[in-house]
Amino acid sequence: MIHTQNLVQLFSETRQLTEDICKPLGIEDYVVQPTIDVSPPKWHLGHTTWFFEEFILKPHKQGYRIYHQDFAFVFNSYYENVGKRVIRSDRGNLSRPGVTQVFDYRHYVTAEMKEFLQQGVPDSLMETLLIGIHHEKQHQELLRTDIKYILGNNPLLPALNTDWIEHPIERHQTDWITIPAGIYEIGHAGTDFCYDNELGKHQVYLGDFQISNKLVTNAEFIEFIAAGGYQDFNLWHADGWTWAQENQITAPMYWHQIDGSWHYYSTSGLEAIDPEAPLAHISYYEAFAYSQWKDCRLPTEFEWEVSQKHFNWGLRWEWTESAYLPYPGYTKAAGAIGEYNGKFMVNQKVLRGGSVATSPVHTRHTYRNFFQPELRWQFTGLRLARS
Amino acid sequence: MIHTQNLVQLFSETRQLTEDICKPLGIEDYVVQPTIDVSPPKWHLGHTTWFFEEFILKPHKQGYRIYHQDFAFVFNSYYENVGKRVIRSDRGNLSRPGVTQVFDYRHYVTAEMKEFLQQGVPDSLMETLLIGIHHEKQHQELLRTDIKYILGNNPLLPALNTDWIEHPIERHQTDWITIPAGIYEIGHAGTDFCYDNELGKHQVYLGDFQISNKLVTNAEFIEFIAAGGYQDFNLWHADGWTWAQENQITAPMYWHQIDGSWHYYSTSGLEAIDPEAPLAHISYYEAFAYSQWKDCRLPTEFEWEVSQKHFNWGLRWEWTESAYLPYPGYTKAAGAIGEYNGKFMVNQKVLRGGSVATSPVHTRHTYRNFFQPELRWQFTGLRLARS
Amino acid sequence: MIHTQNLVQLFSETRQLTEDICKPLGIEDYVVQPTIDVSPPKWHLGHTTWFFEEFILKPHKQGYRIYHQDFAFVFNSYYENVGKRVIRSDRGNLSRPGVTQVFDYRHYVTAEMKEFLQQGVPDSLMETLLIGIHHEKQHQELLRTDIKYILGNNPLLPALNTDWIEHPIERHQTDWITIPAGIYEIGHAGTDFCYDNELGKHQVYLGDFQISNKLVTNAEFIEFIAAGGYQDFNLWHADGWTWAQENQITAPMYWHQIDGSWHYYSTSGLEAIDPEAPLAHISYYEAFAYSQWKDCRLPTEFEWEVSQKHFNWGLRWEWTESAYLPYPGYTKAAGAIGEYNGKFMVNQKVLRGGSVATSPVHTRHTYRNFFQPELRWQFTGLRLARS
Amino acid sequence: MIHTQNLVQLFSETRQLTEDICKPLGIEDYVVQPTIDVSPPKWHLGHTTWFFEEFILKPHKQGYRIYHQDFAFVFNSYYENVGKRVIRSDRGNLSRPGVTQVFDYRHYVTAEMKEFLQQGVPDSLMETLLIGIHHEKQHQELLRTDIKYILGNNPLLPALNTDWIEHPIERHQTDWITIPAGIYEIGHAGTDFCYDNELGKHQVYLGDFQISNKLVTNAEFIEFIAAGGYQDFNLWHADGWTWAQENQITAPMYWHQIDGSWHYYSTSGLEAIDPEAPLAHISYYEAFAYSQWKDCRLPTEFEWEVSQKHFNWGLRWEWTESAYLPYPGYTKAAGAIGEYNGKFMVNQKVLRGGSVATSPVHTRHTYRNFFQPELRWQFTGLRLARS
Repeated sequence: MIHTQNLVQLFSETRQLTEDICKPLGIEDYVVQPTIDVSPPKWHLGHTTWFFEEFILKPHKQGYRIYHQDFAFVFNSYYENVGKRVIRSDRGNLSRPGVTQVFDYRHYVTAEMKEFLQQGVPDSLMETLLIGIHHEKQHQELLRTDIKYILGNNPLLPALNTDWIEHPIERHQTDWITIPAGIYEIGHAGTDFCYDNELGKHQVYLGDFQISNKLVTNAEFIEFIAAGGYQDFNLWHADGWTWAQENQITAPMYWHQIDGSWHYYSTSGLEAIDPEAPLAHISYYEAFAYSQWKDCRLPTEFEWEVSQKHFNWGLRWEWTESAYLPYPGYTKAAGAIGEYNGKFMVNQKVLRGGSVATSPVHTRHTYRNFFQPELRWQFTGLRLARS
Repeated sequence: MIHTQNLVQLFSETRQLTEDICKPLGIEDYVVQPTIDVSPPKWHLGHTTWFFEEFILKPHKQGYRIYHQDFAFVFNSYYENVGKRVIRSDRGNLSRPGVTQVFDYRHYVTAEMKEFLQQGVPDSLMETLLIGIHHEKQHQELLRTDIKYILGNNPLLPALNTDWIEHPIERHQTDWITIPAGIYEIGHAGTDFCYDNELGKHQVYLGDFQISNKLVTNAEFIEFIAAGGYQDFNLWHADGWTWAQENQITAPMYWHQIDGSWHYYSTSGLEAIDPEAPLAHISYYEAFAYSQWKDCRLPTEFEWEVSQKHFNWGLRWEWTESAYLPYPGYTKAAGAIGEYNGKFMVNQKVLRGGSVATSPVHTRHTYRNFFQPELRWQFTGLRLARS
Repeated sequence: MIHTQNLVQLFSETRQLTEDICKPLGIEDYVVQPTIDVSPPKWHLGHTTWFFEEFILKPHKQGYRIYHQDFAFVFNSYYENVGKRVIRSDRGNLSRPGVTQVFDYRHYVTAEMKEFLQQGVPDSLMETLLIGIHHEKQHQELLRTDIKYILGNNPLLPALNTDWIEHPIERHQTDWITIPAGIYEIGHAGTDFCYDNELGKHQVYLGDFQISNKLVTNAEFIEFIAAGGYQDFNLWHADGWTWAQENQITAPMYWHQIDGSWHYYSTSGLEAIDPEAPLAHISYYEAFAYSQWKDCRLPTEFEWEVSQKHFNWGLRWEWTESAYLPYPGYTKAAGAIGEYNGKFMVNQKVLRGGSVATSPVHTRHTYRNFFQPELRWQFTGLRLARS
Repeated sequence: MIHTQNLVQLFSETRQLTEDICKPLGIEDYVVQPTIDVSPPKWHLGHTTWFFEEFILKPHKQGYRIYHQDFAFVFNSYYENVGKRVIRSDRGNLSRPGVTQVFDYRHYVTAEMKEFLQQGVPDSLMETLLIGIHHEKQHQELLRTDIKYILGNNPLLPALNTDWIEHPIERHQTDWITIPAGIYEIGHAGTDFCYDNELGKHQVYLGDFQISNKLVTNAEFIEFIAAGGYQDFNLWHADGWTWAQENQITAPMYWHQIDGSWHYYSTSGLEAIDPEAPLAHISYYEAFAYSQWKDCRLPTEFEWEVSQKHFNWGLRWEWTESAYLPYPGYTKAAGAIGEYNGKFMVNQKVLRGGSVATSPVHTRHTYRNFFQPELRWQFTGLRLARS
């Protein structure tokens, strides 16, 4: 049970942080969509706002006046239940509403929400409200990675003054953690907020396995490149090999070879690679190929969850071998909120851990992130396992 | 340990059956490739032959003279280790080698193989040899379904005199089989032939579940259509919904509505649908949507394997909820043969059971078939499960 | 011979007008590229500046310091001779350089140019200088039409306070002008500036023909729509029919049917169509289909040039039946400037006249505009002719 | 006025020649469509037959029984007036009707036509009948070039025993023919058959020009290649350059460099290039680039027609600089026959002359062939001109 004041505070801080993340941006940076998976920052600002307007204020706040009748069309992401929307690939074609108006929309909805929350939230709405808050936290991570993409794919490679460290280092030696075979409990229990895809607590049987206590580093991955890993099809999935050939992939995203040495772009600009930092910005296909080259494999999401207490995490999203599938007994909510997770449970891989861009609240050990295997713009890395 | 004479007989019968399947074809039917997943029958005839030439005769039969130096280029499917090849989408652009020459190639290689087998096969080659034979059996199924596709997508809807019954019926009443929670053994054991993806025997924990003793029938699926199942996005995965919209899918493959009643094409021609026959030619997306509409789900491949002794099978490939992933401890063979299964273990779903087009040897309960979720040209159906 | 002061004034006014056109824009409006043919306004501002830097200042002004080494990469449009460039479809993905910096770039180059021009321009440079100025005037038209596209394809249909009237009216009655057969002179003569594609003056033989003294109006085109013109394939070219079907074209660009009556978007907002105004924003394919429906045809560019003194123009770019081809004896300049016109002389149609968005200097009767037949975002209309 | 017996003979010989051209084919060669512009030979056989059935027999022969109700769907090429049809890219996906049945269809229609013709053709039908015959002659040329494409793009490069010589040689020295400026008559006059696009006779004014008395030879084009012509963008149109880069074009179609010397595929197999033979299988873009490299240009179709009496022709289709446009006063026939030529008069270039694959009847000096500028599978070459 959350006290009203705590709830208002959680809500307000979340809303504020989203805006803080955008502080270093120029107006133009809010607008562009250089690839379909990256949304314009002003779209994130509007979309997270629309979520509260659509699912809380419109149906539940008496006398609420919608800010603008066309904004539902502009800021709906993928909720089929809620009506038509700008197609995803067109988000970067919209110069209007302008940034100032989007902030005005935000502040209007934030104020209305605070007023609404002060009156006390009925239990039946609490779930939706918390989803709205955590939804915005997820978009905070997307904002960080989308901003990086927008600048890191600009030929000028501009630097921003951002609030997070992209390349923290794990100082300990690499070692294998050994986990014995047995039945383990997986999934979320308790009363804390979690998404429906983490429920419910259930048993899985795991065979003996070993898992590394440390993420693969840049230095280790440079060895893979130097050994011709990107040219040896035997290390790759068929789909991965095709992807790498068609897109001429020969290094992680944001890597540049300058005068024979590797550099990467981080939001503070182009810099020499730190060999000790954990590898980032690789696809599942690259993670898999690297693991093959090391005669190892990727852990499953269950192996990861069972062994996570033995290592740090929160540095990189770690590709697992697991496909994103429903847990036993999974049911989605009725209506539009039911579209949140369930309809994506095909053709994606699970990532575990959380990254430097992730909201701290989301680096819980049952959290299941998921992406298509070719995507790289998140801070994605890997940890080795073996049977 | 297989006796030489048994081996020669297995080999010879397999080679003969492939040709028998093609007996009803006109020469022109051997040539076309109406969609990328369907190969021309003469390509199947050549490719299964090339497999023996490339992996057995060329490296192991003394004095073997290659039939034609360019045929490796023409008939290699996807073995990167073996060199360049005609790209898959171009198989239907090749009028040469002609059908007569492809049969000549077959007979040459069959004769050489028999001679080679008579001398006794060294143990080290047995695995490759058996893969070659079972590989050809898999292509027998593809031949049947590709022939159906070639004719069933022709505007004349021609009938063939084929050797298999497409729509056998399960006469028993539908009922739920209840399986208690526990640890179960999964995977292949013993000395019989199996593919590497079925190995090794291992334990999984399953919660309580129920699974239907009968496949979903055409009549049941017609109810789904009539209820607007193809129009209700809440039943579908996001990818499935996009697929259905873009391809204007409103019924299973081969279904035609004529004067208000459903018909389907089978290789014996266009006919009224048998309502009691098990549904066929649906995608995973449709199977999933149907299960949602019934407030059920698809079984996992493990649930299927554990409960299979309680039902018939061998009628339809049954879509499962499981992604196609390696079993614990999976390792692929060295060299080109290692490309057989492992490199496809991403972005595909597992099917279990076997269909009316499947070689009887392959309808074993540990056999793992796999396809991309949108494919429908196999005899694919579904069985419901629930927790 | 142009006096230095006149030249400086011409240059300065041109530079200023470009910026004036952008005055009503919000910062975000400068950034987006909603379709490949539409460039972001800030790109136009930078590109016209780069032209002077690249072709005048860099090679000819002593001690000139390039503003930014990467701007040639960012702002080159299609000059293969000058090096690599951002691919055209990526112009809208660049948030940097920002609008302020682009204006700073403009002002830097403008000032350097003025200083350079004050010293007197050598004859050998005059041609390139004038091309630079007229090039910028061409981009002023593109700015106007691109701004209209950016706003007119935004779901909010925002209005701008622009400086031009989109829908002026021809008040006179429609009538046929009769021109007798004979040899006529075509092309530019004299010492005024013109582009290489207008040179040189040459003779063509024309048969008798009639040409309308008035552009086709909106009211007339509404009759075509009402008569099913968009549904009658006999009126269309094969390519035009395919284009219309694939893009679901059923009205000119910017037209909306609201409660049964036609409206269009102009930069001052959505408004009811003025039936008397000349039709705008149609493709060549639509112009051709309309002419067929009227049992007429489009004039050739020669017929247009010969008869232009009998009618107004400067309202709409008028599609002609002529393909864009070199005049007899056409030769292109050496080097990058030679890429200006010649390399586009295939697969395009000639338009004559000039529109409400065109620089007055470019509405000369020998001016040859050219576009692919499907493009509609310019103010394009038509005038009928018949033999 | 054509006598009945002459007409029957013309018809019969035309029908027979089409079948003779196919004599060397294997059944499989009739079926495939390796690229969209190449139709399967059996489709040509059926389509030319359907033309007579659809436009002569069905509407005009009393009691005519249609051979097969679905063949109009299968064999209609592009006549929108006649109903739906197999989409062009699917022609190679049809194994049925088989070759035997297509020949049966041919023979049925041929016999019915002969019976019909014996009764005397009413004047009102003569035009359609002659179009049918000449239409089939055009498809004879397509048959020859499509057969070449089918075999020449097969990795086995099979040889056929064909009835035409691909590489005849012009023995005379290259020289310029000088034509004085003046008014010339262009187009077809008289009572012989011609297509509507050659009508009517009209005047054009031409300036002085020179035109080569000889086609460009292979040896000359090899010099262009050796001089880096395919790598020098200044020689190319923008569209041509893009086309060449995207398709990695570095030589004419069918050319192979083997051990440092150029070979080409002709239907008699792979052979060393004859340096003296006229160049074939180039696109308009390559023709244009070559002409630029020689500081010349391509002739217009009018220049070609005016000067053609001074040179041989009938060896290569010669790309001209002219776009395919209607002659003054052009009108198309009513109904489906009106779709024959007029609807293609955009986005194509005119070719003049006729090639080794062309029906002799079609090598008349007013004949206007037309293709998109990138197409190369016809025997296309070039002749230089200059002002």
